[in-house]
Amino acid sequence: MRTVDLIARKRDGGELTSDEIGWLIREYAAGKIPDYQAAALLMAIYLRGMNRRETVDLTLAMAASGEMLDLHDVAPLIVDKHSSGGVGDKTSLAVLPLVAACGVPVGKMSGRGLGSSGGTLDKMESFAGWSPALSLDQFKRQLRDIGLVLAGQTADLAPADGKLYALRDVTATVSNRSLIAASIMSKKLAAGADAIVLDVKMGSGAFMPTLEAAEDLARLMVEIGEDAGRRVVALISDMNQPLGHAVGNALEVKEAIAALSGGGPDDFWDHCLTVAAHMLRLAGAAATLDEARAKVGAARADGRGLAKFRELVVAQGGDGRQVDEPERLPRARYVEPIEATGSGYVAAMDTAELGWVCVRCGGGRLVKSDVVNPGVGFLLPVKIGDYVERGQPIGEIHADDDMTLQQAQRDIPAALTLAPDPVAPLPLFYATINGE
Amino acid sequence: MRTVDLIARKRDGGELTSDEIGWLIREYAAGKIPDYQAAALLMAIYLRGMNRRETVDLTLAMAASGEMLDLHDVAPLIVDKHSSGGVGDKTSLAVLPLVAACGVPVGKMSGRGLGSSGGTLDKMESFAGWSPALSLDQFKRQLRDIGLVLAGQTADLAPADGKLYALRDVTATVSNRSLIAASIMSKKLAAGADAIVLDVKMGSGAFMPTLEAAEDLARLMVEIGEDAGRRVVALISDMNQPLGHAVGNALEVKEAIAALSGGGPDDFWDHCLTVAAHMLRLAGAAATLDEARAKVGAARADGRGLAKFRELVVAQGGDGRQVDEPERLPRARYVEPIEATGSGYVAAMDTAELGWVCVRCGGGRLVKSDVVNPGVGFLLPVKIGDYVERGQPIGEIHADDDMTLQQAQRDIPAALTLAPDPVAPLPLFYATINGE
Repeated sequence: MRTVDLIARKRDGGELTSDEIGWLIREYAAGKIPDYQAAALLMAIYLRGMNRRETVDLTLAMAASGEMLDLHDVAPLIVDKHSSGGVGDKTSLAVLPLVAACGVPVGKMSGRGLGSSGGTLDKMESFAGWSPALSLDQFKRQLRDIGLVLAGQTADLAPADGKLYALRDVTATVSNRSLIAASIMSKKLAAGADAIVLDVKMGSGAFMPTLEAAEDLARLMVEIGEDAGRRVVALISDMNQPLGHAVGNALEVKEAIAALSGGGPDDFWDHCLTVAAHMLRLAGAAATLDEARAKVGAARADGRGLAKFRELVVAQGGDGRQVDEPERLPRARYVEPIEATGSGYVAAMDTAELGWVCVRCGGGRLVKSDVVNPGVGFLLPVKIGDYVERGQPIGEIHADDDMTLQQAQRDIPAALTLAPDPVAPLPLFYATINGE
Repeated sequence: MRTVDLIARKRDGGELTSDEIGWLIREYAAGKIPDYQAAALLMAIYLRGMNRRETVDLTLAMAASGEMLDLHDVAPLIVDKHSSGGVGDKTSLAVLPLVAACGVPVGKMSGRGLGSSGGTLDKMESFAGWSPALSLDQFKRQLRDIGLVLAGQTADLAPADGKLYALRDVTATVSNRSLIAASIMSKKLAAGADAIVLDVKMGSGAFMPTLEAAEDLARLMVEIGEDAGRRVVALISDMNQPLGHAVGNALEVKEAIAALSGGGPDDFWDHCLTVAAHMLRLAGAAATLDEARAKVGAARADGRGLAKFRELVVAQGGDGRQVDEPERLPRARYVEPIEATGSGYVAAMDTAELGWVCVRCGGGRLVKSDVVNPGVGFLLPVKIGDYVERGQPIGEIHADDDMTLQQAQRDIPAALTLAPDPVAPLPLFYATINGE
């Protein structure tokens, strides 16, 4: 097999066979295909596309390029979730404890934030002493003991994906649906998930700007999961405004604790309830979605979800008192109001820009090596469809210095578009895509 | 300027500015843009195309990446020719001496053969002692003294093209008309040509398989030349069968000597006459093509062309007696007839395959490091449209061993398609494309 012939075939719009895709990924991962040939192939794939069979083969080949976890010695069925990333998306913090509290073990490997999207691990590190660094043995022991783990990547999962992703990043070949879907799903398959709920965000704060693009990606990921013998459901959820009110690590942790305690913003709770219910149903712990919702609601109402969250914090070295008394979590030096700079109905938000405001306050990363400040961020309870008056407080900024504080006070109102006529509020979810 | 942004623009079908193209080529030649980014950009260019302005900018940027020769201290106007390569194409051997004999100095840098196409330097090396290795000073001195030089590349011409070509070769991005045209023309511009006759081959032995593709490429090269202030004419010539009868280095030299002596195959002479006449007219040595043809014909008839060829051989260390007595040129051990394996009209030839037959006899190169055997090859006087009878001798093979001899005796007739009904002979030229 000659790499250049396979590049030429894809360049001309042809198909690559399963064997050819498997060979390409193995040789590339082994350093036997140089980056320049991989780059030409990626651009040909970007512009010519891959069909469903090719995409599944790519996913399986990347998953097989490193360790393939098998957690069935610890749990009969592994359920996982994946969010495509957004602003204020602290869903995992509430959903995972609720699912675990309903008797379905959750062992999740998660990532850090980069750019305008936050990361679950960064949020959890708001707890003093909490660590995501677990060995695979520690991961399995905790999963067996308390049914809930949230860790950084403990194994060498899908290394071919990591290598290809770094190349895509510098060759303008990131935003192709087959390559995105294969990248996400290869890690989920390698992590040993039997059932996966995908939360695909759509809107001004998401990677996918339109419903069509998000549905397209979601459908492809569901198809990959099916063809790989997994149960998968994809939800298309709104990211045209932040989820909940809080953006920033400790602020989001507090909002998740509030939700687990029966309070917090309605939109955030409704989002968590839906995601958790889908996970329960996929895991076979409920026959219908309604039954699953009732179970999740009960685990919230009787405090089992919050208790499980506290167990997660303590098991990984965190200070449980910060769960009991969230005011012990890190706080910014300054808290100041955000004021509306005009009057009208909130018609749109530049949600990615709101994420960048938090990054500029120190709450996120411009580059991977940046250190995250857990205390900073903002609360923005105002939602699309709300009416605001010029000068009215619409939220509050938490910052550690005067400069970022003042900049955020200007930037947040500027990210809102006001209109004179009433605007309809946005739904939380647009679509649910089930496997066959 | 970020390379990844320029790749993304081209990927999405956008245009690159002159400054951007100049920057990309400079940075790539300097090793500051890695091959993997260049490979992604090349594939995006391959699939999205470049417009005329972008192609001219690419050509000029590549030409400017190394030395830009100026030969005007030696000759008032530099005329050059370029052939896109074919089987039996020994045109330069006859054309260049004729043009020089008509008073127009020709200093040409030429290449070696690779694959099914032969190379002019390989053919000239059939002369004992002849060398194409000249310094730039030697090149200029000989051009001044005898008005004719045929050398390997004496200067560091268009190094960015060399680097990019090597990358295109392994990334399946060779066969794009903008990239081909820019590659050819960048070297011609850097070599200091004021006037260029392009001989673009079309057919079963050429890079361009159809008239449309050949005209398209030719027109683009003429446009590049115009925009760069040069006089350019492109001829689209037939390569659906070998040019002349001889294929193989010394056999082709003998055919060129025969043509310069007033003999040789008609098709080969007609081809040479047309190319040489266009060169004279472009150089201003004749007002019309007819006048130019008459001058070239006179230079052949009175022996000035052959005398100039002998000067070329001797000036570069070759044995002039081999011009006077061509039987002194290298000869193969075995000469055997080729017989027709069926009866009918010759309807088509797999001309590239005929070129490969010569390579397999040792007369060409599979890889750059192969040593060429000057004596081997074949004579195939039969042309498309001729009627042949089964068992009739249709040519002769010159080989140095039994195995390649027998293989060629099978392969050459197999490369001919015979038909029961009469077939029209092919024209030598299909089109002439002049600048505005």
